[in-house]
Amino acid sequence: MEVFLGIDMGGTAIKLGLVSREGKLLKSFQVPTRAETQDRQVIVDNIKNAIRSALGGWEKVLAIGIGVPGGVDKKHGIIRFMPNIQALENYSLAEDLEKSFGMPVAIDNDANNAARGEYVFGAAKKYQDFVLITLGTGIGGGIFIRGDIYGGVANFAGEVGHMKLVPEGRTCGCGLNGCWEAYGSATAMIKRAQGLVAMGKKTSLSSVPEINAKVIFDEAKKGDEIALEVVEEVCHYLGIGIANLIHLFNPEAVVVGGGVSQAGDFLFERLRRYTSLYTKTEMFETCTIVPAALVNDAGVMGSAALAIMTLEHWGK
Amino acid sequence: MEVFLGIDMGGTAIKLGLVSREGKLLKSFQVPTRAETQDRQVIVDNIKNAIRSALGGWEKVLAIGIGVPGGVDKKHGIIRFMPNIQALENYSLAEDLEKSFGMPVAIDNDANNAARGEYVFGAAKKYQDFVLITLGTGIGGGIFIRGDIYGGVANFAGEVGHMKLVPEGRTCGCGLNGCWEAYGSATAMIKRAQGLVAMGKKTSLSSVPEINAKVIFDEAKKGDEIALEVVEEVCHYLGIGIANLIHLFNPEAVVVGGGVSQAGDFLFERLRRYTSLYTKTEMFETCTIVPAALVNDAGVMGSAALAIMTLEHWGK
Repeated sequence: MEVFLGIDMGGTAIKLGLVSREGKLLKSFQVPTRAETQDRQVIVDNIKNAIRSALGGWEKVLAIGIGVPGGVDKKHGIIRFMPNIQALENYSLAEDLEKSFGMPVAIDNDANNAARGEYVFGAAKKYQDFVLITLGTGIGGGIFIRGDIYGGVANFAGEVGHMKLVPEGRTCGCGLNGCWEAYGSATAMIKRAQGLVAMGKKTSLSSVPEINAKVIFDEAKKGDEIALEVVEEVCHYLGIGIANLIHLFNPEAVVVGGGVSQAGDFLFERLRRYTSLYTKTEMFETCTIVPAALVNDAGVMGSAALAIMTLEHWGK
Repeated sequence: MEVFLGIDMGGTAIKLGLVSREGKLLKSFQVPTRAETQDRQVIVDNIKNAIRSALGGWEKVLAIGIGVPGGVDKKHGIIRFMPNIQALENYSLAEDLEKSFGMPVAIDNDANNAARGEYVFGAAKKYQDFVLITLGTGIGGGIFIRGDIYGGVANFAGEVGHMKLVPEGRTCGCGLNGCWEAYGSATAMIKRAQGLVAMGKKTSLSSVPEINAKVIFDEAKKGDEIALEVVEEVCHYLGIGIANLIHLFNPEAVVVGGGVSQAGDFLFERLRRYTSLYTKTEMFETCTIVPAALVNDAGVMGSAALAIMTLEHWGK
């Protein structure tokens, strides 16, 4: 059995998983990142120890893939910026780990890896040209073209969340305004619902312990009119952004991942309806909008997919 | 000397040009399309006669490229829809011409060919990943990825003019609303200026024989405030669209062609300024915004570039 190690780096925790070529998660665990030390050597040693634990007893691990929340010079395996773990910026992490463990190591942005995960193991196995969007705190994107991630000149491509969809629109966390994620992310959805509750609108959302995307969908499904209004509004904006992606990429599929994608048909029926309204007919008809297959462990599985694709391209 | 034949099909005229590998236009002429006959055989014979005239005396023509204003199944050389010359829809034109003339024949959408022209002969020679936009009646687009046109699943990719930039915005000729080209095309610019003139705004545009994009730029350059307002507004929207393209494609360059691109630095200074405002800094900094090199004969030169790229990929 061929086994690959996928690592999902976050500001708080490093998640590791051994994954078979067929996509079975054989072993997984996590360790604290220790980013708060702001000490590169401490964090790198921490990663190496975790990798040693992961590899222990598995002789057939062939490659390591790492996903990070930041900008990566993929060619050289160097993280260029990563606000949550700045100590690792501009360090040849891949090269260091290759020397330490004697196997290929690749690093990329976590949204790109999420797309790789769907391509290798998940909902995009049969597609060569597709766009993955992840709906969560923000809106991330990974673009597959001719069977591989398209990164553009500096591996920044796929910043779908910062398409400007509303001139003079809402301020986005990035500093720009009118960005897609200021309208279509879980964060945007929650803010909108909180605003309506604060205004005193009659809604079941005013009596829930915590408003999150799942609760809003659940209340909308039960018939709460305000929750439904929030869902329709978010899906309208999601439809605009997906329509734009279809007009630009003419993809075989748009794969929708992230926590919000768990809302099921109630979400997807609306996404398809709004997207259809905003897309040229012949282009809508050649594209399918589907949920991502990987949700839990998507980070680790995506990184394992990077490891697999790296090994396949090794030496080519 | 290697020579290629580029053909630019329009509803009114078919333009033909013999072009050297180095990009010299050796001979060019045009014939009426005869689309009004709505007779496939008449139009095809017409094309063949024109090709015979073009080839006469040139023994070293190696391939033929054709650009059409429509949707093309490039793989099979079949025009799927072309509102201006419907008689040629769903006909194996490339195959027919290959048999008749004994050389490779390729057909593609004219916006894709415009991008090929810039790649082979023009402003994008040194780029592998770039987006060409053409500002004219509408806004067309051609997307280069890893040194070749990216067409997507049905060769519809690059419909940049129909990105929705303004929710509930102006109606577009395509039937959708809020499309980029309803705000950033020459047509949009002219309509906006006409509206301001009709309202009785004090402007030199009210005394010109015909309002077109060139006149609006010329009057703005001379200091007419209303003309300048129209230019600023259009550049604001062009900046939004270009920013979106940069966020999605992280290209080395955005090449701007079409008649409007002739407005020179007065236009490009504004395009860069607005785009910069709407783009993440690190992504703006890795992208250059440049005018297309081919304007006159762009259609024929783009089709010749298709012929050259087709021959290079032949048999691969």
